Amino acid sequence: MKYQELVSEINRKRSLLCVGLDTDLTKLPKHLLSEKDAVFEFNKVIIDATAKYSVAFKPNLAFYESLGLSGWKSLEKTIDYINERYPEILTIADAKRGDIGNTSKMYAKAFFENLKFDAVTVAPYMGKDSVAPFLEYDNKWVIVLGLTSNQGAFDFQLTPNALTNKPLFEDVLAKSSEWGTKDNMMYVVGATKAEMLQDVRKIVPNHFLLVPGVGAQGGSLDDVIKNGANQDKGLIINSSRGIIYADNTKEFGLVSEQKALELQKQMSGYF
Amino acid sequence: MKYQELVSEINRKRSLLCVGLDTDLTKLPKHLLSEKDAVFEFNKVIIDATAKYSVAFKPNLAFYESLGLSGWKSLEKTIDYINERYPEILTIADAKRGDIGNTSKMYAKAFFENLKFDAVTVAPYMGKDSVAPFLEYDNKWVIVLGLTSNQGAFDFQLTPNALTNKPLFEDVLAKSSEWGTKDNMMYVVGATKAEMLQDVRKIVPNHFLLVPGVGAQGGSLDDVIKNGANQDKGLIINSSRGIIYADNTKEFGLVSEQKALELQKQMSGYF
Repeated sequence: MKYQELVSEINRKRSLLCVGLDTDLTKLPKHLLSEKDAVFEFNKVIIDATAKYSVAFKPNLAFYESLGLSGWKSLEKTIDYINERYPEILTIADAKRGDIGNTSKMYAKAFFENLKFDAVTVAPYMGKDSVAPFLEYDNKWVIVLGLTSNQGAFDFQLTPNALTNKPLFEDVLAKSSEWGTKDNMMYVVGATKAEMLQDVRKIVPNHFLLVPGVGAQGGSLDDVIKNGANQDKGLIINSSRGIIYADNTKEFGLVSEQKALELQKQMSGYF
Repeated sequence: MKYQELVSEINRKRSLLCVGLDTDLTKLPKHLLSEKDAVFEFNKVIIDATAKYSVAFKPNLAFYESLGLSGWKSLEKTIDYINERYPEILTIADAKRGDIGNTSKMYAKAFFENLKFDAVTVAPYMGKDSVAPFLEYDNKWVIVLGLTSNQGAFDFQLTPNALTNKPLFEDVLAKSSEWGTKDNMMYVVGATKAEMLQDVRKIVPNHFLLVPGVGAQGGSLDDVIKNGANQDKGLIINSSRGIIYADNTKEFGLVSEQKALELQKQMSGYF
């Protein structure tokens, strides 16, 4: 997907919504558990219910890997289903990968060629050669962890650097933004630290930001958009649990649709 | 696996060798490509050939994921094969995972429960709650990235912190070593920066270090052991390409055995 295609989809739907597919077998509606592939059946319903209000879907790899081979199969079916029915929607593998060059190259192959995701999240700790292999693909995106939404972000990401006197995450943004462009890189910046989005925008004014942490983790949509939007909006705001587990009866699809619509309505007020 | 069991195995074999199973379809001996599961058939030969000189096996997840479902299947068969035939050998999932707490919990489940690895490598960027879920398992290990062997390590890991004036990786070692103990944590420290092992040992004198980068990446075995060994040796030294791709004829098992023996012989001189 190209930058301009994503911007068009955002404007067409007046939405910044990313639906996080953190599909957990223990939280699924009971009636699905007799299905042969309950995870995929659940995802299918959620995808169809929320697609018209969403601009991105983000499967969280850990939830699929925890189920082993059957989880990987459900993931494959899920990404194929989205790509076939909703090719205009950005797909993000939330995988937080990153390794030495020859290994990151294999991860890029896994997510861009084998699974055909549009984007993958990557941890920056190992530096440039751990990120660069993901940038070699046309119309694909690497989403580098900047400032995450969890408590542990305070352990290292916010520690000031002696040379620049800036927190580590700002160095990560500044340095890594030279490795790619707004057309192939985005950043994860957590909604729970929305006041810092202004600092983020000083460093990467034009990149898309993937913002987790609205909803279950406590971040505010209004704070995120007011502090983080740029001329193209430049935000993809994720909600996982608040949408996909809003209900666990046979009506769960309908309820997730309503939850997605609620968020899209709030978002549309900023267009 | 318990700390003392690992130490005993090291002393029994007079070896610190970890064989990295970075199994790449494009590098396998041609005669294996007609096999139904060439990756597993290759691994089986390498494992049987090198087990008597090794104390650890380390599949690199990226190589399996790049093959999709069939790769995950080969990985499952590989770990099952090692656990069944060589339960005394430490198994490491080189996965470099790490996410918010509820997600890291799923990764821990994937690697410790579903796949039954003894250890998994984890990136520290997201802080304590991204590492803690891996510490909740008895006789399992989390191996935190400290100082990696690649060029990109210079981008962030070696940047000094304004509060402590120490490089980031030293803060990572110091802080994270309070989250666990030598019985459930190890650190990745690259052989290409062996002179820094003395600094590492001042911070974590008692933890095992997993040391990649000897061989193909240019690190010296002698430098690593002289600078990094503690009273229990405390080192697991990985070699991947130098052993598993030493030959690509039908004799590849025999050649890999010789390469493993060569390394073990050098290592035994330090016992």
